[in-house]
Amino acid sequence: MNGDRYVPKRIDLRSDTVTQPTEEMRRAMAVAPVGDDVYGEDPTIRELEELAAKRTGKEAALFVTSGTQGNLVAIATHVKTGEEVIAEAESHIFYYEAAGIAAVAGAQIRQVTGVRGVLQPNDVQRAIRPLDIHQPRTALISLENTHNRAGGTVTPVSVLQEIRSVAHASGVPVHMDGARLFNAAVASGCSAKDIADCVDTIQFCLSKGLGAPVGSVLAGPKSFIEAARQWRKRLGGGLRQAGILGAAGILALTKMVDRLADDHDNARILAERLANMPGVVVDLATVQTNIVLADIAETGMPMDTFLTRLREAGVLSTAFGPTTVRFVTHKDVTREDVLQAVDIVAEVLAHKH
Amino acid sequence: MNGDRYVPKRIDLRSDTVTQPTEEMRRAMAVAPVGDDVYGEDPTIRELEELAAKRTGKEAALFVTSGTQGNLVAIATHVKTGEEVIAEAESHIFYYEAAGIAAVAGAQIRQVTGVRGVLQPNDVQRAIRPLDIHQPRTALISLENTHNRAGGTVTPVSVLQEIRSVAHASGVPVHMDGARLFNAAVASGCSAKDIADCVDTIQFCLSKGLGAPVGSVLAGPKSFIEAARQWRKRLGGGLRQAGILGAAGILALTKMVDRLADDHDNARILAERLANMPGVVVDLATVQTNIVLADIAETGMPMDTFLTRLREAGVLSTAFGPTTVRFVTHKDVTREDVLQAVDIVAEVLAHKH
Amino acid sequence: MNGDRYVPKRIDLRSDTVTQPTEEMRRAMAVAPVGDDVYGEDPTIRELEELAAKRTGKEAALFVTSGTQGNLVAIATHVKTGEEVIAEAESHIFYYEAAGIAAVAGAQIRQVTGVRGVLQPNDVQRAIRPLDIHQPRTALISLENTHNRAGGTVTPVSVLQEIRSVAHASGVPVHMDGARLFNAAVASGCSAKDIADCVDTIQFCLSKGLGAPVGSVLAGPKSFIEAARQWRKRLGGGLRQAGILGAAGILALTKMVDRLADDHDNARILAERLANMPGVVVDLATVQTNIVLADIAETGMPMDTFLTRLREAGVLSTAFGPTTVRFVTHKDVTREDVLQAVDIVAEVLAHKH
Amino acid sequence: MNGDRYVPKRIDLRSDTVTQPTEEMRRAMAVAPVGDDVYGEDPTIRELEELAAKRTGKEAALFVTSGTQGNLVAIATHVKTGEEVIAEAESHIFYYEAAGIAAVAGAQIRQVTGVRGVLQPNDVQRAIRPLDIHQPRTALISLENTHNRAGGTVTPVSVLQEIRSVAHASGVPVHMDGARLFNAAVASGCSAKDIADCVDTIQFCLSKGLGAPVGSVLAGPKSFIEAARQWRKRLGGGLRQAGILGAAGILALTKMVDRLADDHDNARILAERLANMPGVVVDLATVQTNIVLADIAETGMPMDTFLTRLREAGVLSTAFGPTTVRFVTHKDVTREDVLQAVDIVAEVLAHKH
Repeated sequence: MNGDRYVPKRIDLRSDTVTQPTEEMRRAMAVAPVGDDVYGEDPTIRELEELAAKRTGKEAALFVTSGTQGNLVAIATHVKTGEEVIAEAESHIFYYEAAGIAAVAGAQIRQVTGVRGVLQPNDVQRAIRPLDIHQPRTALISLENTHNRAGGTVTPVSVLQEIRSVAHASGVPVHMDGARLFNAAVASGCSAKDIADCVDTIQFCLSKGLGAPVGSVLAGPKSFIEAARQWRKRLGGGLRQAGILGAAGILALTKMVDRLADDHDNARILAERLANMPGVVVDLATVQTNIVLADIAETGMPMDTFLTRLREAGVLSTAFGPTTVRFVTHKDVTREDVLQAVDIVAEVLAHKH
Repeated sequence: MNGDRYVPKRIDLRSDTVTQPTEEMRRAMAVAPVGDDVYGEDPTIRELEELAAKRTGKEAALFVTSGTQGNLVAIATHVKTGEEVIAEAESHIFYYEAAGIAAVAGAQIRQVTGVRGVLQPNDVQRAIRPLDIHQPRTALISLENTHNRAGGTVTPVSVLQEIRSVAHASGVPVHMDGARLFNAAVASGCSAKDIADCVDTIQFCLSKGLGAPVGSVLAGPKSFIEAARQWRKRLGGGLRQAGILGAAGILALTKMVDRLADDHDNARILAERLANMPGVVVDLATVQTNIVLADIAETGMPMDTFLTRLREAGVLSTAFGPTTVRFVTHKDVTREDVLQAVDIVAEVLAHKH
Repeated sequence: MNGDRYVPKRIDLRSDTVTQPTEEMRRAMAVAPVGDDVYGEDPTIRELEELAAKRTGKEAALFVTSGTQGNLVAIATHVKTGEEVIAEAESHIFYYEAAGIAAVAGAQIRQVTGVRGVLQPNDVQRAIRPLDIHQPRTALISLENTHNRAGGTVTPVSVLQEIRSVAHASGVPVHMDGARLFNAAVASGCSAKDIADCVDTIQFCLSKGLGAPVGSVLAGPKSFIEAARQWRKRLGGGLRQAGILGAAGILALTKMVDRLADDHDNARILAERLANMPGVVVDLATVQTNIVLADIAETGMPMDTFLTRLREAGVLSTAFGPTTVRFVTHKDVTREDVLQAVDIVAEVLAHKH
Repeated sequence: MNGDRYVPKRIDLRSDTVTQPTEEMRRAMAVAPVGDDVYGEDPTIRELEELAAKRTGKEAALFVTSGTQGNLVAIATHVKTGEEVIAEAESHIFYYEAAGIAAVAGAQIRQVTGVRGVLQPNDVQRAIRPLDIHQPRTALISLENTHNRAGGTVTPVSVLQEIRSVAHASGVPVHMDGARLFNAAVASGCSAKDIADCVDTIQFCLSKGLGAPVGSVLAGPKSFIEAARQWRKRLGGGLRQAGILGAAGILALTKMVDRLADDHDNARILAERLANMPGVVVDLATVQTNIVLADIAETGMPMDTFLTRLREAGVLSTAFGPTTVRFVTHKDVTREDVLQAVDIVAEVLAHKH
């Protein structure tokens, strides 16, 4: 196949960050009432922040331009220079945020290996530092839910509660990188608030699966959000007529959450079909949301060849390690697209040379 | 007057940051083709960045969410931790960016007092550090043009050229905070490129007088912009479908520049009328663009009283010091509004108690 | 025993940092020619730095006040803010340096688990980041030899060479925290230079087993040491008449290295005797130099009780984990002391309640 | 003269940092009881810290390796990343500490120009920032007494008290860089405690005029010093058997303070004689302690020529600006030396070509 065949549509499974805004979002952005949000005068942003606070059960919320910024602002507000943040060994804040925590907040990340991305309360307990002049103070536990590099895995609410207990017993607050919080909630059969209740502060994205073009929200106690607001300004994240983006964010929160279940179903189907292909290994236990990791080592096909052929055939995916490919389902990928992608993968692997 | 009178419209002279997007911008945002800009796939952002590079005569450009972020990303890319940046004593990067240069780039700002906001080449020369273990290396000269706290003053191109010579002779690059670059160009009767040619890197805002809701652009050499791109990501300024904002930015650059002359005319009228009021002191020599600073010390009216009464009468302005008020003209303030504001100020000052 | 018995001498096995300067060192300090070392005019420091450079086969060397400062100055010189340093998961720079790397250099430590403290070349290879906007650039590999928390283990020269190859192939330099470099050399049967040849820069301590009261040395290329000199100054580590300390440092290097073999022998005896006690677990494979880690979990005696009773009986040691005790041999502990300490441990464990 | 004449002794007026330890100090260092100060077990350091606390009337004190380190540790303990420190425009922390405040503490220095190095309370008042998201919080006022670049000037206790009032009224603490605190006290005819009472924390040097080879002390509230102790460790300033240096420090404090009056007398004589030389300008009002600044612009002799000829004739001094030379008197310069130096300067200037 590929190359000589007509490819009617690109099936983009690289990430849910590629989602296009809906028509309704575009219309809302075109008419959104806006003001200068640095002065706190953008009515649409205020509405979004109130909505986000309510959805997470927090006192206040702050619009930021990305999940990375939400995490950075949160952590810089929580910690002081020379302190330590405990996070899962392959968490996004350690792996994919360009060492911003060290560069900006001056804090060290202590990498603790979880089980399928889920930090174990006992390990968190052991990683909290004693008071000792040689050791940085443990200033924060940062959880990632769902966990990207582990394959979109969900930390159960019961585990979150245990970690909160362990942390609070040592006077350490808990932050959640909830870039895909609503995927976690849908998969857990609970509300975002049920999850957010387990942590002191939380960041979630309006883009990704929820489809807004730009933006995330950081939620937490009122005084915390006030301090975070200055950190956002310091990083240049204070926007002027931000309500343009906020209008899409409101729709992301009110109209786009329920449909995440479809993405999860699609991911499941994709995962199961891939797992049946010769030489492809998928740990189905990790396929809890909209991410599928497939190890193609045993197919004998080099990663570059695999990605290139898939791309030529209209399917985009991402290398996630020397032999691991990541596929992410989202609103711009239909069930039909997924099934077609499965066929294309099968075909690519069938013609190994 | 005030309070008991009907106020048909709020005349907002606090800042040109309060400008609303035009209807054309809103339409463009609604239909902009977008992609994931972190992957470099947003066609509208690419168009904007190319346009901005061309307008400034630089090899490449990078969309950022604010002038503050543009400056921070630029400076963090230019300098290393423990180095020094020379800037005017009341420059925005020192005064209004929440110490981000120190916090993020780990660099010290050396404050050199200019003449009406214009750094003098000889003073820059003297401020460049010798090689000495006790002293931070001078890694950057950062200019602000127009200069906000000096009252929107313009640094003449001839002075810019001299500073560039002084800096480059010591191997020090020059950055410009051109948040209001196009105001400077219009007032200088030259192009933005004529100004940008004098510096190595430049940041300018699409919001403020140009009316885009959100965004600025950093322009410079290609390799510099590549490095800056990672700093933007590190700060959480990497956006996904940023083309929504980019569409307004393109219109800001192509449709909104010429009209800045009106703002300057309005500011001039406002300044002259204020200067004639008893007790109000305006240094007319500083009124070169769209900013007017008025010292009300000799009116005997306390700042708070003055601002409050003005606000109650529908005119918004900003305290810029214990007895200095700042007024800024912009696209959402007409000639008529300015004349009405003048009347209101006169009336407020006439009823001092 | 304990408490009611006469304790003739405290046997301090907490750390080799407790060593007292020798009488010869005290005499040398009293008469050392000194000058202002910030001006580069202290003859004794210059002699020490030349000697240290020669011993490590490097172009130049720099006296610093501690191993922590040597590592911090080295790493801050090697990396830029927002970059990454690969180090063993329980390395001293991560575990015991109060997050100075993040706080001062703005860099992130990537913790890679070694085998008995020895980083594996393949794991280093895998941990080097690809060029990717999301990921910090890998700017340095930092090795610890001997490795403290692993129990004083030595990284074989052949492994060092492999790691150097892997690192240099990716353009990444290698630093060594050689706080106990001479212990590593003695245990490896090679010279310090043989080890230092495998790395670009190296730090070793004059205190600890070598007995100088204060000080470490950082060695490397000449231009690197020049840059490091300013970092030392920035941290307040530039001393004036430092030759007082330098005089002891010279003796540490010239007179105290060979006797480290005795400490290793003493540690071996201590380890073997402890390993034979009921409930005490010692991994004898890690006892390669002057450190012994003993796990007392199975004795059933709580850590606090154990340490307290030992202390009351005149033996000092350190908790190195919930059930792990660290004993360190050094010049102020004789063979007799070690044997007496063994008896005391046995006695303490025999009376468990 | 010069070059061809026999020069019996070098008269080193570059800085009081070049002072040699006294014979009594050397004897004390040789026999000082020492322990591991990181464990808080060095009896000599404990004695020194208690003595320093008493002399400054503070609860606690901390030995550090230099004035730069004392200031850095203090400021890093006082402020958080992204905050601001007010200091005199040419203060040592801004001018000569390699931007360590920005690099390590992430804080911005606000330079306020004083009168002959003395910050004016009104100017301090005006420089304290309002609460505003754009502006860094004012977290500290840092005073320098005596003020080096202003020529060793003293801030009167009454001014210190006013600044303290202004600062504390805004909830801002005050730190003093008292590198030459005892010179200030002697010149003010008061005790060090009288000065230290005006500030929250204070750093003073044991080296410089007091003659110890290495070291400074930071004093302040007990909880502050505890936190500072970890910052010292983080910078690698935690020493092991530091009592060697501490022994000299104790003598510096107990035996060397009163003789500073001689240095002041010598400086006065030197200043008056220089002021009488043709073309040499000395602001005698600044000659309050042991520093003399002389402007040689009107002599027509280039700085380099002047310094070189002086050096060749046995007198060392320092360039302190394009035409300003600094001379510092200290314990290793006698009245006779000063008079001889005066003759040599006169002779050098007499033979201008």
